[in-house]
Amino acid sequence: MHMNLKNNERIDDLQCKGLKIIQKTDGFCFGMDAILLSHFANIPLNARVMDLGTGTGIIPILMSAKTNASKIVGLEIQKDIAEMAQRSVCMNGLQDKISILCGDIKNISHEFEKASFDCVVSNPPYMSPNSGIINPDISRAVSRHEIMCTFEDIIKAGDHLLIPRGKLTVIHRPHRLVDLLYFMRQNGIEPKRLRMVFSFKNSSPSMVLIEAIKGEKPNLTVLPPLYIYNTNGEYSEEIKLIYDCAGDD
Amino acid sequence: MHMNLKNNERIDDLQCKGLKIIQKTDGFCFGMDAILLSHFANIPLNARVMDLGTGTGIIPILMSAKTNASKIVGLEIQKDIAEMAQRSVCMNGLQDKISILCGDIKNISHEFEKASFDCVVSNPPYMSPNSGIINPDISRAVSRHEIMCTFEDIIKAGDHLLIPRGKLTVIHRPHRLVDLLYFMRQNGIEPKRLRMVFSFKNSSPSMVLIEAIKGEKPNLTVLPPLYIYNTNGEYSEEIKLIYDCAGDD
Repeated sequence: MHMNLKNNERIDDLQCKGLKIIQKTDGFCFGMDAILLSHFANIPLNARVMDLGTGTGIIPILMSAKTNASKIVGLEIQKDIAEMAQRSVCMNGLQDKISILCGDIKNISHEFEKASFDCVVSNPPYMSPNSGIINPDISRAVSRHEIMCTFEDIIKAGDHLLIPRGKLTVIHRPHRLVDLLYFMRQNGIEPKRLRMVFSFKNSSPSMVLIEAIKGEKPNLTVLPPLYIYNTNGEYSEEIKLIYDCAGDD
Repeated sequence: MHMNLKNNERIDDLQCKGLKIIQKTDGFCFGMDAILLSHFANIPLNARVMDLGTGTGIIPILMSAKTNASKIVGLEIQKDIAEMAQRSVCMNGLQDKISILCGDIKNISHEFEKASFDCVVSNPPYMSPNSGIINPDISRAVSRHEIMCTFEDIIKAGDHLLIPRGKLTVIHRPHRLVDLLYFMRQNGIEPKRLRMVFSFKNSSPSMVLIEAIKGEKPNLTVLPPLYIYNTNGEYSEEIKLIYDCAGDD
Protein backbone atom coordinates (compact mmCIF):
# COMPACT_ATOMS: atom_id res chain seq x y z
CA MET A 1 0.00 0.00 0.00
CA HIS A 2 1.12 3.56 -0.76
CA MET A 3 2.66 5.26 2.27
CA ASN A 4 0.16 8.16 2.14
CA LEU A 5 -2.91 5.96 2.07
CA LYS A 6 -5.20 4.61 4.75
CA ASN A 7 -7.76 1.85 4.37
CA ASN A 8 -10.52 2.65 1.86
CA GLU A 9 -8.50 5.39 0.17
CA ARG A 10 -7.10 5.67 -3.33
CA ILE A 11 -4.95 8.16 -5.25
CA ASP A 12 -6.39 9.73 -8.41
CA ASP A 13 -4.38 11.58 -11.05
CA LEU A 14 -5.88 15.03 -11.79
CA GLN A 15 -4.40 15.06 -15.35
CA CYS A 16 -3.10 18.55 -14.58
CA LYS A 17 0.57 19.39 -14.04
CA GLY A 18 1.13 16.01 -12.35
CA LEU A 19 -1.27 16.82 -9.49
CA LYS A 20 -2.81 13.97 -7.55
CA ILE A 21 -5.54 13.65 -4.93
CA ILE A 22 -6.43 11.16 -2.21
CA GLN A 23 -10.10 10.15 -2.08
CA LYS A 24 -12.09 7.61 -0.07
CA THR A 25 -13.11 4.61 -2.12
CA ASP A 26 -16.44 4.51 -0.25
CA GLY A 27 -16.95 8.24 0.44
CA PHE A 28 -17.83 11.36 -1.53
CA CYS A 29 -15.51 11.85 -4.52
CA PHE A 30 -14.92 15.14 -6.29
CA GLY A 31 -16.87 15.64 -9.50
CA MET A 32 -17.17 17.94 -12.45
CA ASP A 33 -18.63 20.70 -10.24
CA ALA A 34 -15.25 21.24 -8.50
CA ILE A 35 -13.51 21.47 -11.87
CA LEU A 36 -16.10 23.89 -13.30
CA LEU A 37 -15.96 26.09 -10.19
CA SER A 38 -12.13 26.22 -10.28
CA HIS A 39 -12.35 27.28 -13.91
CA PHE A 40 -15.19 29.82 -13.51
CA ALA A 41 -13.73 31.59 -10.47
CA ASN A 42 -11.92 34.70 -11.56
CA ILE A 43 -9.08 34.88 -9.01
CA PRO A 44 -6.94 38.08 -9.08
CA LEU A 45 -3.14 37.95 -8.94
CA ASN A 46 -1.83 37.26 -5.43
CA ALA A 47 -5.35 36.85 -4.02
CA ARG A 48 -5.93 35.25 -0.65
CA VAL A 49 -8.57 32.56 -1.27
CA MET A 50 -10.78 30.63 1.16
CA ASP A 51 -12.53 27.41 0.10
CA LEU A 52 -15.45 26.78 2.47
CA GLY A 53 -16.14 23.06 2.89
CA THR A 54 -13.09 21.90 0.98
CA GLY A 55 -13.67 18.14 1.34
CA THR A 56 -10.82 16.29 -0.39
CA GLY A 57 -9.08 19.64 -1.01
CA ILE A 58 -9.73 19.35 -4.74
CA ILE A 59 -10.50 23.05 -5.25
CA PRO A 60 -7.37 24.44 -3.51
CA ILE A 61 -5.22 21.88 -5.35
CA LEU A 62 -6.70 22.72 -8.76
CA MET A 63 -6.55 26.45 -8.02
CA SER A 64 -2.88 26.20 -7.09
CA ALA A 65 -2.31 25.22 -10.72
CA LYS A 66 -4.98 27.30 -12.45
CA THR A 67 -4.67 30.67 -10.66
CA ASN A 68 -2.03 33.04 -9.33
CA ALA A 69 -3.46 33.08 -5.81
CA SER A 70 -0.85 33.79 -3.15
CA LYS A 71 -2.51 31.69 -0.44
CA ILE A 72 -5.38 29.22 -0.48
CA VAL A 73 -7.08 28.01 2.71
CA GLY A 74 -9.39 25.00 2.68
CA LEU A 75 -11.77 24.74 5.64
CA GLU A 76 -13.34 21.35 6.37
CA ILE A 77 -15.48 20.37 9.36
CA GLN A 78 -14.89 16.60 9.20
CA LYS A 79 -11.58 15.85 10.94
CA ASP A 80 -10.69 12.70 9.00
CA ILE A 81 -11.50 14.34 5.66
CA ALA A 82 -9.44 17.45 6.54
CA GLU A 83 -6.53 15.21 7.51
CA MET A 84 -6.83 13.32 4.20
CA ALA A 85 -6.90 16.64 2.27
CA GLN A 86 -3.76 17.72 4.18
CA ARG A 87 -2.00 14.54 3.02
CA SER A 88 -3.02 15.37 -0.60
CA VAL A 89 -1.52 18.84 -0.20
CA CYS A 90 1.75 17.35 1.13
CA MET A 91 1.84 14.66 -1.58
CA ASN A 92 1.76 17.48 -4.18
CA GLY A 93 4.35 19.57 -2.31
CA LEU A 94 1.88 22.47 -1.96
CA GLN A 95 2.25 23.09 1.79
CA ASP A 96 3.60 26.62 1.22
CA LYS A 97 0.60 27.69 -0.82
CA ILE A 98 -2.31 25.68 0.64
CA SER A 99 -3.42 25.38 4.27
CA ILE A 100 -6.07 22.86 5.21
CA LEU A 101 -7.84 23.66 8.47
CA CYS A 102 -10.41 21.65 10.39
CA GLY A 103 -13.17 23.96 11.58
CA ASP A 104 -16.81 24.96 11.46
CA ILE A 105 -18.04 27.52 8.92
CA LYS A 106 -20.53 28.74 11.54
CA ASN A 107 -17.65 29.71 13.88
CA ILE A 108 -15.70 31.54 11.20
CA SER A 109 -15.73 34.89 13.00
CA HIS A 110 -13.83 33.36 15.94
CA GLU A 111 -11.25 31.68 13.72
CA PHE A 112 -10.48 34.32 11.07
CA GLU A 113 -10.12 38.10 11.04
CA LYS A 114 -12.82 40.11 9.33
CA ALA A 115 -11.95 41.13 5.74
CA SER A 116 -8.90 38.87 5.58
CA PHE A 117 -9.63 37.26 2.17
CA ASP A 118 -9.95 38.57 -1.39
CA CYS A 119 -11.97 35.60 -2.62
CA VAL A 120 -14.20 32.97 -1.09
CA VAL A 121 -15.22 29.92 -3.09
CA SER A 122 -17.53 27.05 -2.19
CA ASN A 123 -19.02 23.91 -3.67
CA PRO A 124 -21.50 23.44 -0.85
CA PRO A 125 -23.98 20.65 -0.10
CA TYR A 126 -26.79 20.95 -2.61
CA MET A 127 -29.75 19.46 -0.76
CA SER A 128 -31.90 21.00 1.97
CA PRO A 129 -31.76 18.85 5.12
CA ASN A 130 -35.43 17.93 4.67
CA SER A 131 -35.20 16.86 1.02
CA GLY A 132 -34.10 13.55 -0.45
CA ILE A 133 -32.64 10.50 1.22
CA ILE A 134 -29.83 11.26 3.67
CA ASN A 135 -26.85 9.02 2.90
CA PRO A 136 -26.09 6.66 5.84
CA ASP A 137 -22.36 7.29 5.22
CA ILE A 138 -21.71 10.44 7.26
CA SER A 139 -18.99 11.82 4.94
CA ARG A 140 -21.23 11.51 1.90
CA ALA A 141 -24.22 12.89 3.80
CA VAL A 142 -22.32 16.00 4.97
CA SER A 143 -21.10 16.64 1.42
CA ARG A 144 -24.56 16.35 -0.09
CA HIS A 145 -27.04 17.61 2.50
CA GLU A 146 -27.09 20.81 4.52
CA ILE A 147 -26.44 18.96 7.76
CA MET A 148 -23.44 20.86 9.08
CA CYS A 149 -24.28 24.20 7.49
CA THR A 150 -26.85 25.86 5.25
CA PHE A 151 -26.19 28.03 2.22
CA GLU A 152 -27.01 31.05 4.35
CA ASP A 153 -24.21 30.07 6.78
CA ILE A 154 -21.81 30.07 3.82
CA ILE A 155 -22.94 33.53 2.71
CA LYS A 156 -22.57 34.90 6.24
CA ALA A 157 -19.09 33.37 6.51
CA GLY A 158 -18.22 34.91 3.13
CA ASP A 159 -19.44 38.29 4.31
CA HIS A 160 -17.18 38.06 7.37
CA LEU A 161 -14.11 36.91 5.44
CA LEU A 162 -14.27 39.13 2.35
CA ILE A 163 -12.69 42.52 1.89
CA PRO A 164 -14.95 45.21 0.32
CA ARG A 165 -15.36 44.29 -3.41
CA GLY A 166 -14.12 40.79 -2.55
CA LYS A 167 -15.57 37.92 -4.60
CA LEU A 168 -17.73 35.00 -3.57
CA THR A 169 -17.92 32.27 -6.22
CA VAL A 170 -20.09 29.17 -5.87
CA ILE A 171 -21.48 26.28 -7.86
CA HIS A 172 -24.89 24.95 -6.89
CA ARG A 173 -28.05 23.38 -8.28
CA PRO A 174 -30.59 25.43 -10.26
CA HIS A 175 -33.50 24.41 -8.03
CA ARG A 176 -31.83 26.46 -5.27
CA LEU A 177 -31.27 29.54 -7.47
CA VAL A 178 -33.75 31.75 -5.61
CA ASP A 179 -32.16 30.86 -2.25
CA LEU A 180 -28.69 31.63 -3.61
CA LEU A 181 -29.50 35.02 -5.12
CA TYR A 182 -31.78 36.02 -2.25
CA PHE A 183 -29.31 35.29 0.55
CA MET A 184 -26.44 36.87 -1.39
CA ARG A 185 -28.25 40.17 -1.87
CA GLN A 186 -29.72 40.10 1.64
CA ASN A 187 -26.17 39.87 3.02
CA GLY A 188 -24.76 42.61 0.80
CA ILE A 189 -22.87 40.32 -1.58
CA GLU A 190 -24.42 41.16 -4.95
CA PRO A 191 -24.59 38.47 -7.67
CA LYS A 192 -22.83 39.89 -10.73
CA ARG A 193 -22.05 36.97 -13.07
CA LEU A 194 -24.08 33.81 -13.62
CA ARG A 195 -23.66 30.84 -15.92
CA MET A 196 -25.89 27.80 -16.24
CA VAL A 197 -24.51 24.37 -17.12
CA PHE A 198 -26.56 22.10 -19.40
CA SER A 199 -25.82 18.47 -20.31
CA PHE A 200 -27.26 18.98 -23.79
CA LYS A 201 -28.64 21.85 -25.87
CA ASN A 202 -32.24 21.05 -24.91
CA SER A 203 -31.72 19.85 -21.31
CA SER A 204 -32.78 21.59 -18.17
CA PRO A 205 -29.66 23.01 -16.51
CA SER A 206 -27.87 20.71 -14.06
CA MET A 207 -25.66 23.27 -12.33
CA VAL A 208 -25.36 27.02 -11.89
CA LEU A 209 -22.17 29.02 -11.37
CA ILE A 210 -22.44 32.40 -9.62
CA GLU A 211 -19.92 35.13 -8.87
CA ALA A 212 -21.04 37.73 -6.34
CA ILE A 213 -19.16 40.83 -5.20
CA LYS A 214 -19.35 42.31 -1.73
CA GLY A 215 -20.83 45.82 -1.73
CA GLU A 216 -21.39 45.99 -5.50
CA LYS A 217 -24.43 47.59 -7.14
CA PRO A 218 -27.10 45.39 -8.78
CA ASN A 219 -26.74 44.39 -12.44
CA LEU A 220 -26.32 40.75 -13.36
CA THR A 221 -24.46 39.45 -16.41
CA VAL A 222 -25.92 36.12 -17.50
CA LEU A 223 -23.38 34.33 -19.69
CA PRO A 224 -24.13 31.97 -22.61
CA PRO A 225 -24.93 28.37 -21.61
CA LEU A 226 -22.10 25.94 -20.86
CA TYR A 227 -22.93 22.65 -22.58
CA ILE A 228 -21.26 19.50 -21.25
CA TYR A 229 -21.92 17.24 -24.24
CA ASN A 230 -22.25 17.56 -27.99
CA THR A 231 -25.29 16.05 -29.67
CA ASN A 232 -23.16 12.96 -30.39
CA GLY A 233 -22.66 12.41 -26.64
CA GLU A 234 -19.00 13.42 -26.55
CA TYR A 235 -17.67 16.16 -24.29
CA SER A 236 -18.12 19.60 -25.85
CA GLU A 237 -15.05 21.50 -27.03
CA GLU A 238 -15.40 23.89 -24.10
CA ILE A 239 -15.48 21.07 -21.54
CA LYS A 240 -12.44 19.48 -23.19
CA LEU A 241 -10.61 22.82 -22.87
CA ILE A 242 -11.62 23.14 -19.21
CA TYR A 243 -10.38 19.60 -18.45
CA ASP A 244 -7.21 20.20 -20.41
CA CYS A 245 -5.31 21.92 -17.61
CA ALA A 246 -2.37 22.88 -19.87
CA GLY A 247 -4.71 24.76 -22.21
CA ASP A 248 -5.71 26.98 -19.36
CA ASP A 249 -3.99 29.56 -17.28
CA MET B 1 -58.85 56.38 -42.79
CA HIS B 2 -60.24 53.45 -40.83
CA MET B 3 -63.07 54.46 -38.48
CA ASN B 4 -61.22 53.11 -35.41
CA LEU B 5 -58.00 54.94 -36.07
CA LYS B 6 -56.61 58.28 -34.94
CA ASN B 7 -53.65 60.10 -36.38
CA ASN B 8 -50.38 58.19 -36.08
CA GLU B 9 -52.09 54.86 -35.52
CA ARG B 10 -52.16 51.69 -37.59
CA ILE B 11 -53.89 48.30 -37.39
CA ASP B 12 -51.72 45.16 -37.28
CA ASP B 13 -52.95 41.62 -37.90
CA LEU B 14 -51.95 39.25 -35.06
CA GLN B 15 -52.03 36.19 -37.38
CA CYS B 16 -54.12 34.46 -34.73
CA LYS B 17 -57.83 33.71 -35.10
CA GLY B 18 -58.32 36.94 -37.07
CA LEU B 19 -57.31 39.13 -34.12
CA LYS B 20 -56.07 42.64 -34.80
CA ILE B 21 -54.45 45.38 -32.74
CA ILE B 22 -54.16 49.14 -32.97
CA GLN B 23 -50.67 50.54 -32.39
CA LYS B 24 -49.10 53.99 -32.63
CA THR B 25 -46.88 54.37 -35.64
CA ASP B 26 -44.49 56.52 -33.59
CA GLY B 27 -44.95 54.91 -30.14
CA PHE B 28 -43.99 51.69 -28.40
CA CYS B 29 -45.15 48.63 -30.37
CA PHE B 30 -45.65 45.17 -28.93
CA GLY B 31 -42.82 42.72 -29.51
CA MET B 32 -41.90 39.09 -29.14
CA ASP B 33 -41.86 39.43 -25.33
CA ALA B 34 -45.67 39.83 -25.22
CA ILE B 35 -46.10 36.75 -27.39
CA LEU B 36 -43.66 34.67 -25.31
CA LEU B 37 -45.31 35.76 -22.06
CA SER B 38 -48.81 34.90 -23.35
CA HIS B 39 -47.51 31.46 -24.32
CA PHE B 40 -45.51 30.79 -21.12
CA ALA B 41 -48.25 31.82 -18.69
CA ASN B 42 -50.10 28.77 -17.48
CA ILE B 43 -53.63 30.13 -17.02
CA PRO B 44 -56.15 27.78 -15.33
CA LEU B 45 -59.65 27.24 -16.70
CA ASN B 46 -61.99 30.17 -15.90
CA ALA B 47 -59.19 32.15 -14.26
CA ARG B 48 -59.56 35.86 -13.56
CA VAL B 49 -56.44 37.46 -15.05
CA MET B 50 -54.94 40.92 -14.49
CA ASP B 51 -52.35 42.35 -16.93
CA LEU B 52 -50.41 45.10 -15.17
CA GLY B 53 -49.24 47.78 -17.60
CA THR B 54 -51.15 46.42 -20.58
CA GLY B 55 -50.07 49.06 -23.11
CA THR B 56 -51.70 48.30 -26.47
CA GLY B 57 -53.70 45.49 -24.81
CA ILE B 58 -51.72 42.88 -26.71
CA ILE B 59 -51.51 40.40 -23.82
CA PRO B 60 -55.26 40.36 -22.94
CA ILE B 61 -56.10 40.07 -26.65
CA LEU B 62 -53.67 37.16 -27.22
CA MET B 63 -54.75 35.48 -23.99
CA SER B 64 -58.40 35.68 -25.01
CA ALA B 65 -57.45 33.32 -27.84
CA LYS B 66 -54.76 31.22 -26.16
CA THR B 67 -56.30 30.55 -22.73
CA ASN B 68 -59.62 29.68 -21.12
CA ALA B 69 -59.58 32.67 -18.79
CA SER B 70 -63.07 33.84 -17.79
CA LYS B 71 -62.13 37.51 -17.46
CA ILE B 72 -59.05 39.50 -18.37
CA VAL B 73 -58.40 43.01 -17.06
CA GLY B 74 -55.71 45.21 -18.61
CA LEU B 75 -54.54 48.13 -16.44
CA GLU B 76 -52.74 51.02 -18.15
CA ILE B 77 -51.66 54.32 -16.61
CA GLN B 78 -51.46 56.36 -19.85
CA LYS B 79 -54.97 57.55 -20.71
CA ASP B 80 -54.52 57.77 -24.49
CA ILE B 81 -52.88 54.31 -24.63
CA ALA B 82 -55.64 52.76 -22.49
CA GLU B 83 -58.25 54.33 -24.77
CA MET B 84 -56.46 52.92 -27.83
CA ALA B 85 -56.33 49.45 -26.21
CA GLN B 86 -60.06 49.72 -25.51
CA ARG B 87 -60.69 50.39 -29.21
CA SER B 88 -58.63 47.26 -30.08
CA VAL B 89 -60.78 45.21 -27.68
CA CYS B 90 -63.97 46.52 -29.31
CA MET B 91 -62.60 46.02 -32.84
CA ASN B 92 -62.12 42.32 -31.96
CA GLY B 93 -65.53 42.05 -30.27
CA LEU B 94 -63.92 41.03 -26.97
CA GLN B 95 -65.72 43.53 -24.68
CA ASP B 96 -67.38 40.71 -22.69
CA LYS B 97 -64.10 39.05 -21.86
CA ILE B 98 -61.59 41.91 -21.64
CA SER B 99 -61.81 45.13 -19.62
CA ILE B 100 -59.26 47.87 -20.15
CA LEU B 101 -58.93 50.25 -17.22
CA CYS B 102 -56.90 53.40 -16.89
CA GLY B 103 -55.22 53.47 -13.49
CA ASP B 104 -52.02 53.45 -11.48
CA ILE B 105 -50.45 50.16 -10.35
CA LYS B 106 -49.33 51.92 -7.16
CA ASN B 107 -52.97 52.65 -6.23
CA ILE B 108 -54.16 49.12 -6.88
CA SER B 109 -55.37 48.51 -3.32
CA HIS B 110 -57.89 51.37 -3.67
CA GLU B 111 -59.15 50.16 -7.05
CA PHE B 112 -59.41 46.38 -6.62
CA GLU B 113 -60.42 44.03 -3.83
CA LYS B 114 -57.70 41.99 -2.18
CA ALA B 115 -57.41 38.42 -3.54
CA SER B 116 -59.74 39.10 -6.46
CA PHE B 117 -57.56 37.54 -9.22
CA ASP B 118 -56.24 34.04 -9.92
CA CYS B 119 -53.41 35.21 -12.16
CA VAL B 120 -51.43 38.40 -12.63
CA VAL B 121 -49.21 38.85 -15.67
CA SER B 122 -46.89 41.69 -16.62
CA ASN B 123 -44.43 42.69 -19.30
CA PRO B 124 -43.07 45.64 -17.33
CA PRO B 125 -40.55 48.34 -18.25
CA TYR B 126 -37.13 46.71 -18.29
CA MET B 127 -34.82 49.57 -17.44
CA SER B 128 -34.08 51.18 -14.08
CA PRO B 129 -34.92 54.90 -14.18
CA ASN B 130 -31.24 55.76 -13.80
CA SER B 131 -29.95 53.52 -16.61
CA GLY B 132 -29.84 54.14 -20.35
CA ILE B 133 -31.23 57.01 -22.38
CA ILE B 134 -34.81 57.97 -21.52
CA ASN B 135 -36.87 58.18 -24.72
CA PRO B 136 -38.20 61.73 -25.30
CA ASP B 137 -41.50 60.16 -26.49
CA ILE B 138 -43.41 59.74 -23.21
CA SER B 139 -45.31 56.63 -24.32
CA ARG B 140 -42.11 54.86 -25.32
CA ALA B 141 -40.30 56.06 -22.20
CA VAL B 142 -43.02 54.77 -19.84
CA SER B 143 -43.00 51.40 -21.61
CA ARG B 144 -39.23 51.03 -21.38
CA HIS B 145 -38.11 52.74 -18.18
CA GLU B 146 -39.36 52.41 -14.63
CA ILE B 147 -40.79 55.92 -14.63
CA MET B 148 -44.36 55.25 -13.54
CA CYS B 149 -43.63 52.18 -11.44
CA THR B 150 -40.76 49.91 -10.39
CA PHE B 151 -40.70 46.14 -10.50
CA GLU B 152 -41.25 46.15 -6.75
CA ASP B 153 -44.50 48.12 -7.27
CA ILE B 154 -45.65 45.37 -9.64
CA ILE B 155 -44.85 42.64 -7.12
CA LYS B 156 -46.71 44.50 -4.36
CA ALA B 157 -49.71 44.99 -6.66
CA GLY B 158 -49.58 41.26 -7.51
CA ASP B 159 -49.50 40.40 -3.82
CA HIS B 160 -52.63 42.50 -3.24
CA LEU B 161 -54.54 41.12 -6.21
CA LEU B 162 -53.71 37.41 -6.02
CA ILE B 163 -55.60 34.72 -4.17
CA PRO B 164 -53.46 32.30 -2.08
CA ARG B 165 -51.60 30.04 -4.57
CA GLY B 166 -52.40 32.57 -7.32
CA LYS B 167 -49.83 32.93 -10.08
CA LEU B 168 -47.68 35.90 -11.06
CA THR B 169 -46.05 35.51 -14.49
CA VAL B 170 -43.62 38.02 -15.96
CA ILE B 171 -41.11 38.47 -18.74
CA HIS B 172 -38.09 40.64 -18.07
CA ARG B 173 -34.43 41.08 -18.88
CA PRO B 174 -31.75 38.78 -17.41
CA HIS B 175 -29.68 41.66 -16.01
CA ARG B 176 -32.58 42.28 -13.59
CA LEU B 177 -32.87 38.61 -12.52
CA VAL B 178 -31.66 39.21 -8.96
CA ASP B 179 -34.15 42.06 -8.47
CA LEU B 180 -36.99 39.90 -9.81
CA LEU B 181 -36.33 36.84 -7.66
CA TYR B 182 -35.44 38.90 -4.59
CA PHE B 183 -38.58 41.06 -4.60
CA MET B 184 -40.80 38.08 -5.39
CA ARG B 185 -39.56 36.06 -2.42
CA GLN B 186 -39.47 39.11 -0.15
CA ASN B 187 -43.16 39.68 -0.87
CA GLY B 188 -44.17 36.04 -0.38
CA ILE B 189 -44.63 35.21 -4.06
CA GLU B 190 -42.18 32.37 -4.59
CA PRO B 191 -40.56 31.89 -8.03
CA LYS B 192 -41.35 28.32 -9.12
CA ARG B 193 -40.68 28.10 -12.88
CA LEU B 194 -38.05 29.94 -14.91
CA ARG B 195 -37.09 29.86 -18.56
CA MET B 196 -34.37 31.83 -20.30
CA VAL B 197 -34.69 32.94 -23.91
CA PHE B 198 -31.59 32.89 -26.14
CA SER B 199 -31.28 34.23 -29.70
CA PHE B 200 -28.81 31.47 -30.57
CA LYS B 201 -27.33 28.37 -28.92
CA ASN B 202 -24.24 30.26 -27.78
CA SER B 203 -25.77 33.68 -27.03
CA SER B 204 -26.24 35.30 -23.69
CA PRO B 205 -29.95 35.17 -22.81
CA SER B 206 -32.03 38.12 -24.01
CA MET B 207 -35.15 37.54 -21.91
CA VAL B 208 -36.27 35.58 -18.86
CA LEU B 209 -39.75 34.20 -18.16
CA ILE B 210 -40.72 33.61 -14.52
CA GLU B 211 -43.81 32.09 -12.92
CA ALA B 212 -44.15 32.70 -9.18
CA ILE B 213 -46.85 31.40 -6.86
CA LYS B 214 -48.17 33.26 -3.85
CA GLY B 215 -47.45 31.42 -0.60
CA GLU B 216 -45.63 28.49 -2.20
CA LYS B 217 -42.56 26.81 -0.71
CA PRO B 218 -39.13 27.35 -2.32
CA ASN B 219 -37.98 25.01 -5.11
CA LEU B 220 -37.37 26.39 -8.56
CA THR B 221 -37.76 24.46 -11.81
CA VAL B 222 -35.42 25.87 -14.44
CA LEU B 223 -36.63 24.77 -17.88
CA PRO B 224 -34.49 24.04 -20.95
CA PRO B 225 -33.45 27.11 -22.97
CA LEU B 226 -35.86 28.64 -25.47
CA TYR B 227 -33.90 29.42 -28.64
CA ILE B 228 -35.32 32.04 -31.00
CA TYR B 229 -33.23 31.18 -34.07
CA ASN B 230 -31.65 28.11 -35.62
CA THR B 231 -27.99 28.25 -36.59
CA ASN B 232 -29.13 29.16 -40.12
CA GLY B 233 -30.81 32.31 -38.79
CA GLU B 234 -34.40 31.12 -39.27
CA TYR B 235 -36.91 31.02 -36.43
CA SER B 236 -36.57 27.81 -34.40
CA GLU B 237 -39.30 25.19 -34.61
CA GLU B 238 -40.46 26.12 -31.12
CA ILE B 239 -40.79 29.82 -31.98
CA LYS B 240 -42.71 28.91 -35.16
CA LEU B 241 -45.09 26.83 -33.03
CA ILE B 242 -45.54 29.69 -30.54
CA TYR B 243 -46.29 32.15 -33.34
CA ASP B 244 -48.60 29.68 -35.01
CA CYS B 245 -51.66 30.48 -32.93
CA ALA B 246 -53.68 27.58 -34.40
CA GLY B 247 -51.04 25.08 -33.29
CA ASP B 248 -51.57 26.14 -29.74
CA ASP B 249 -54.37 25.91 -27.28
